[in-house]
Amino acid sequence: MPTREEFPKDDQSGRFAYEGLDRVIHEKARLSILTSLIAHPKGLVFGDLKQLCGLSDGNLSRHLQVLAEAKLVEINKAFEKNRPQTTCRITAQGRKQYLEYLQVLEQVVRDAAAAGTEIDKPGIIPRRLFPA
Amino acid sequence: MPTREEFPKDDQSGRFAYEGLDRVIHEKARLSILTSLIAHPKGLVFGDLKQLCGLSDGNLSRHLQVLAEAKLVEINKAFEKNRPQTTCRITAQGRKQYLEYLQVLEQVVRDAAAAGTEIDKPGIIPRRLFPA
Repeated sequence: MPTREEFPKDDQSGRFAYEGLDRVIHEKARLSILTSLIAHPKGLVFGDLKQLCGLSDGNLSRHLQVLAEAKLVEINKAFEKNRPQTTCRITAQGRKQYLEYLQVLEQVVRDAAAAGTEIDKPGIIPRRLFPA
Repeated sequence: MPTREEFPKDDQSGRFAYEGLDRVIHEKARLSILTSLIAHPKGLVFGDLKQLCGLSDGNLSRHLQVLAEAKLVEINKAFEKNRPQTTCRITAQGRKQYLEYLQVLEQVVRDAAAAGTEIDKPGIIPRRLFPA
């Protein structure tokens, strides 16, 4: 007799597929960039963003380009004290898509927590995500 | 004058780097597989896992192989009613690493929520992840 679990066949198709996990956002470096930018809605200069994300110049440039092409961030090049300065900002569309992505991410956490009491004990996953 | 935000330079390095987002687990299909398996600790047969994750045979096989090589899942091939049956199960190490990964994922959600009131309203991110 198999020890695998039985589950109802109906309505389970794609139950854990997480289609909403947009790959443009989900990639680790880009998730890091977007979370930095959503936490700093007025924008960040390239050097500060690089520091917050712990990325190299090349990696940050490459991933910013992907995000800009997807219209999730906007990049402005200007001069400050006669030196070129690149500023990055999340767009309204980027904010919207990031929030949609975040809802799916929370579903992953809920699904994992629903798995059992062992995973759902204090210190592993807090009962309240936002303590009062 | 730049409109970008200022932030304290110290202790911000890598603040949004999320080093703990293990790429083996973070990849979308593998996150889907591992969440299915953590929700079914006794294991799942290949066909059921495929259905839950919405993956093709080839994609599921490929990602299972990566997870097995990382010792996060174990794959058993046996016969049931004279037909070969592949069963997949999360390992103790897989469970441990998944839980560590999950804590970082929750940090991402908290960081995003801390960004402002707009993101932190009911319906976008629930105040309590686990309602009473």
